[in-house]
Amino acid sequence: MQITLKDIARMAGVAESTVSRALNDKPGVGKETRLKILKIAKENNYRPNQLARGLAAKKTNMIAVILAEMDSPGNIEIVKSIEKAAEKRGYQIILCNTNNQEDKEESYLSLLESNQVDGAIFIGGKLVGSHLLKASFSQDNRIVLVNRLAEENFFTSVLTDYSQGLYKAVEHLLKENFKKIALVCGNRDNLVEEEKISGYKNALRDSGLEVNEELIFSTANNRQAGYNVFLEIIEGDVIPDSFISTRELTTIGLVEAIKMGGYFIPDDFAVVGYGDNILTSVIDPPLTVLGEPVEKLGKSSLEFLLELINEKMDSQQIKVLTPELIIRESSISKYN
Amino acid sequence: MQITLKDIARMAGVAESTVSRALNDKPGVGKETRLKILKIAKENNYRPNQLARGLAAKKTNMIAVILAEMDSPGNIEIVKSIEKAAEKRGYQIILCNTNNQEDKEESYLSLLESNQVDGAIFIGGKLVGSHLLKASFSQDNRIVLVNRLAEENFFTSVLTDYSQGLYKAVEHLLKENFKKIALVCGNRDNLVEEEKISGYKNALRDSGLEVNEELIFSTANNRQAGYNVFLEIIEGDVIPDSFISTRELTTIGLVEAIKMGGYFIPDDFAVVGYGDNILTSVIDPPLTVLGEPVEKLGKSSLEFLLELINEKMDSQQIKVLTPELIIRESSISKYN
Repeated sequence: MQITLKDIARMAGVAESTVSRALNDKPGVGKETRLKILKIAKENNYRPNQLARGLAAKKTNMIAVILAEMDSPGNIEIVKSIEKAAEKRGYQIILCNTNNQEDKEESYLSLLESNQVDGAIFIGGKLVGSHLLKASFSQDNRIVLVNRLAEENFFTSVLTDYSQGLYKAVEHLLKENFKKIALVCGNRDNLVEEEKISGYKNALRDSGLEVNEELIFSTANNRQAGYNVFLEIIEGDVIPDSFISTRELTTIGLVEAIKMGGYFIPDDFAVVGYGDNILTSVIDPPLTVLGEPVEKLGKSSLEFLLELINEKMDSQQIKVLTPELIIRESSISKYN
Repeated sequence: MQITLKDIARMAGVAESTVSRALNDKPGVGKETRLKILKIAKENNYRPNQLARGLAAKKTNMIAVILAEMDSPGNIEIVKSIEKAAEKRGYQIILCNTNNQEDKEESYLSLLESNQVDGAIFIGGKLVGSHLLKASFSQDNRIVLVNRLAEENFFTSVLTDYSQGLYKAVEHLLKENFKKIALVCGNRDNLVEEEKISGYKNALRDSGLEVNEELIFSTANNRQAGYNVFLEIIEGDVIPDSFISTRELTTIGLVEAIKMGGYFIPDDFAVVGYGDNILTSVIDPPLTVLGEPVEKLGKSSLEFLLELINEKMDSQQIKVLTPELIIRESSISKYN
């Protein structure tokens, strides 16, 4: 049975007019109340204008792929995989880059709201905010998230198990007899990076080792940041014997700095990077990486989205894929 | 004064109904006649439904950027430059990838035809066909081409002078005392590649050298093709002492094959690559490249497009930019 505005009002303990204002993006509702109402609506599969949309919606066979970062070669690989899968099903994609800006994300969402695309796939980005939550139910759930977290499991998602990936990387380095493993990751207020950190810590603890917080470095995701962090590290108190770097551009800068400093990989420092793609494959020496399952991430997200578009999915589905550790020269100890 | 259907019919020497069919994509007009009519219409700035569009067109502040190849890091840099310039002017871009397929290009053009975007920038691709010609005048010229040629100068364009770029590269290698310069380029039916070949040939001839056709190799634009072409070359009759490789992915494969073969760069073979970006910058040894003016290509194309959208441009404008030769280790002779 369809839930009504009245039901939501009762469940939220507010007036019906408040629910209406919250669901229609009108002012006069506090932030928390608004979020509470949106969550209830989503949880109960509220669909405000299904009939209206059914009448208006002409299939466009276009899908919006909304990227938080275009600089990542891994993201571009996911896009290519979505595109390949879409082509087989007679869909074309249009690509949007938000640069992690929420206002841009909202503008691109208007493509979905005005039915210029049949659905949208979001790749990466910050914790899902209320505008996406609202769009998801008002637009018949035609949204799939890739490598993006929401506070609750409100979205059909395809996720990489970053924690498991980092766990594997640490295990491998320990097996190669590296003892002081530094982690170079992103900002800790990013949930995805927090997951990576927890995988790193768990692996150390499970091997009976202590976690040294001084060996965890949060940097921006660019080449210069990777370069600079190495300079900072070798002037620090605790000198690591190996690095796990969780993002591509940072890894490139880090490797450059190690080589510029006259050090050798893996003799002086072992390196495990992130992303098995053309960029990391060009690095010398050949780089051990956590290969993200880009092909599967793309294909599964497209399949999920088509199920949603064709109303063949009853409830949110979440698929979790594990990165593969691809071992190459940069992390093989010569003194083993 | 506005040109009419009747005027076009008279100039083309055909019936008015034929003109109408040609301009409205209806069957019953031969290919050549159709192209002739389209060209006359374009040349005389025919604008069929200006009033209708004026009434219907709501500004969306979105621009479509239509890429022929997403694999090229240089193209992605151009996109980023367009995006930066667009943001400053209050526009957002949506990115479309045609993989050089004409039917995809037509689908994406529908974004422009249905006024879902205010204009379109095309980056790269084959010689412009009649569908683009038609779209250009029926959509008030809201199209700019980047690095894409049209048979006649019907389009506002920003172009890289590839011929001049290759000329510089050959001059440089000759000055470094390399004598047998091989050219690894794309398919010769691609006008852009033909331009590169002519720059290569001109530089040799201007230095009083003969052109050896056996040193010109056309390959696909991917890593494997670059790898394979080197294997082919070293088993050939004429062994070069240096390479100019005109595309990024091919260059990477070529450099890999040289190193895998146990040869040294530049000692055994000098290499000049294409594109000054993160991918080529990671190659070891540091690679001499022809740096495409990606920043300017992006910025100028966006500026042109906004002039067209705001009807501030009277006739087609064409801007030609020259690539810069960035000299690094891979092409410096040690025996000079």
